[in-house]
Amino acid sequence: MRKILLPDTLTDTPALPAGWEAAVIDARAEIPAEHRDAELLVVWGASRAHLASAARDLPRLRLVQSLAAGIEGILAAGFRDDVEIRSGAGLHSPTVTEHTIGLLLALVRSLPESLEAQHRGQWASHLGGLRELHPEGQLTTLLGARVLIWGFGDIGRTLAPILAALGAQVRGAARTAGERGGFEVIATEDVPSALPDTDVLIDILPATEQTRHAVDAAVLAALPDHALVVNVGRGATLDQDALRAALEAGTIGGAALDVTDPEPLPEGDPLWSAPRLIITPHAAGGRPVGAAARIEEALRDLDGAPPATEA
Amino acid sequence: MRKILLPDTLTDTPALPAGWEAAVIDARAEIPAEHRDAELLVVWGASRAHLASAARDLPRLRLVQSLAAGIEGILAAGFRDDVEIRSGAGLHSPTVTEHTIGLLLALVRSLPESLEAQHRGQWASHLGGLRELHPEGQLTTLLGARVLIWGFGDIGRTLAPILAALGAQVRGAARTAGERGGFEVIATEDVPSALPDTDVLIDILPATEQTRHAVDAAVLAALPDHALVVNVGRGATLDQDALRAALEAGTIGGAALDVTDPEPLPEGDPLWSAPRLIITPHAAGGRPVGAAARIEEALRDLDGAPPATEA
Repeated sequence: MRKILLPDTLTDTPALPAGWEAAVIDARAEIPAEHRDAELLVVWGASRAHLASAARDLPRLRLVQSLAAGIEGILAAGFRDDVEIRSGAGLHSPTVTEHTIGLLLALVRSLPESLEAQHRGQWASHLGGLRELHPEGQLTTLLGARVLIWGFGDIGRTLAPILAALGAQVRGAARTAGERGGFEVIATEDVPSALPDTDVLIDILPATEQTRHAVDAAVLAALPDHALVVNVGRGATLDQDALRAALEAGTIGGAALDVTDPEPLPEGDPLWSAPRLIITPHAAGGRPVGAAARIEEALRDLDGAPPATEA
Repeated sequence: MRKILLPDTLTDTPALPAGWEAAVIDARAEIPAEHRDAELLVVWGASRAHLASAARDLPRLRLVQSLAAGIEGILAAGFRDDVEIRSGAGLHSPTVTEHTIGLLLALVRSLPESLEAQHRGQWASHLGGLRELHPEGQLTTLLGARVLIWGFGDIGRTLAPILAALGAQVRGAARTAGERGGFEVIATEDVPSALPDTDVLIDILPATEQTRHAVDAAVLAALPDHALVVNVGRGATLDQDALRAALEAGTIGGAALDVTDPEPLPEGDPLWSAPRLIITPHAAGGRPVGAAARIEEALRDLDGAPPATEA
C-alpha cells in the first residue's frame, strides 16, 4: 500500500485510489516512526516542529499539499528539491470574500452604531428613515463606491464581481498591471496616484519584506477623509499606529481588521478602543473549501506515477 | 406652462421637458393654493394631510408618482378614478438588498459577538483560526445555506443572485409559484413544508391583512434550531413576541429586524434585549435609487398627452 498522511486538523476526508492508505496524524507533533514511508503529506495548521520532522524524516516523500494560501513556512522547512510543494491557493477565496463583504457592509451600514443604540434600548432614528443616498463626507452605501483591492489574486477575483453586483466600481492593484477576470488591475507603483479616487481600500496583500506596512501613514493620508480601509490580508502589511492616528484624527472614515500584528492582538493594545474600527479575530478563512477535491487531485497525479523509492 | 410638484424630501432633481415647470413643496403640508394647477405629483415621505389635500385640491391632476414601493397610503387618500397612481417599485431594490446582505453576514459571521469581545479588549479566539466549515447546529457561512425569500418581488430578484454568488441555494415564495429570474418560487401555501429545509428565512412581505404575522410561532417552530430570520419587509408581518420567545428558548439561531411593529420600537420593549438579535432603525431603504429617471419617465408620458383641463 502507498501512504498519504492527513493532518488531524482536516475535517474533509478525501476518497483514496485503490492501493493507497491514509493515516491521520497530529499536525503539531513530529511524524510518527510508523508513518515515515508516506509519499504524500497534507499540511494544515502545522507546527514548525511538524514541518521540520516531515522535511527530515520522510525519505519517500514526493509531494506536500498545503491547504493554506501562503506556504512560506513550508518553503522554509528545508524539504528536498525533488519534493513538489503545492499551495492551497483558492481554497479560502469564498470564505474570505464572505467575511470581507460582511465587514465592509457593517461599516457602510453603521451596524456597530445601530448595535450600540440597541444595547441602550434606543431606536437610532438618524441612521434610518428618509435620507440622502450620498451624503457629503460619508460613505453610506457601496452603490457607486470606488473600491481598490490591493493584492489582486484568487481572492480578489472572487470578491470583485460580488462587489460589482452590489453596485461598486472595482479596480485591483498587483505587481503587474493588466486586466484580470474583467477588472482593471493597476501596478503597485500606481497605487499612490489612485488613492485620492478611492472610497474603499481592501488590503489582501501577503506578508513579504516588500509589503511590510504597505498601508502606512502616507497611504492613509492620500485617501479621502470618508474612505474605509479593510485588511483581510496579513497584519504586518498595515501600520496599525498610523491607522489608529488616522481614525482618531478623523482623516479616515472607518476601518475593519480581520488580521493584526501581532495575533492575537494583546489585551491593553490601544487599537482595541480606536473609534470607527471593527476587529475580528482572524475569522475570514480558516476553513479550506474543497480541501478533499484538492487532495484527491494530488493523489491522482501521484497515482499515475510509479511508487516512490527512498530518495 | 404645465406643472409638476416635487416633494422637499427629494434630493434627486429630474430634468424637465420644454413647457414644464417644477415647484418644490412641503411633503408634510397641504398643497399651497398657487400650485393647485399641477398635473403631476411626486410623493415621497408624505403626511396623510398632504395626500388628502392632493386628492381634494388638484383638479388638473393626471398622475401621482410615488417613490415608495408600497402605495397603500395613496390608494387610501381618495384620488379620482382618472388619476393614474404609479408605485416606486424597484427604486429600493439595490439599497434593501445591500442592507439585507449586511444583516445576514453580520449574523453568520458573529459580528455582534466579535464587537462585544472588542469592547472588552479581548481577541475572541473561538470565532477565528482553524474551524469546521459547517459545525453541527450552527450556521457560520452562507456557502451551501438554503435561503427562502418570502415575498419574492423586485427586491427578491435583485437579492437572490447576490446570495447565490455568495454560495447560497436560493428559493422564493410568493402568491403564485413559478420561476422568476432563474430562481424557483414556491406558492405561499407550500411555505410550511419548505421550512424544515430552510437555513435562512428572509421576510420581504408587504403589510396586508393576509400577511399579518405571517412569520408566527408555528413558522418559527418549523424552522431548524440553527435557522436565521431576517425581516426587511414590514414589521407587522412578523410576530415579535413569538420571535423573542424562540430566541430565548434557543429554537432559532438568530434574527435581524430592520422593521418593527410599531416603529420606532418603544424604549423598554423587551425585544431590545432579546439574545442573538440585531435591530436596525428601518435603515435598509429610504433612499430611492433612480428617482429622477422614474419621474422623467412619468413626465415624458404626460408630455405626450395634451395639457389637462380641470376634471
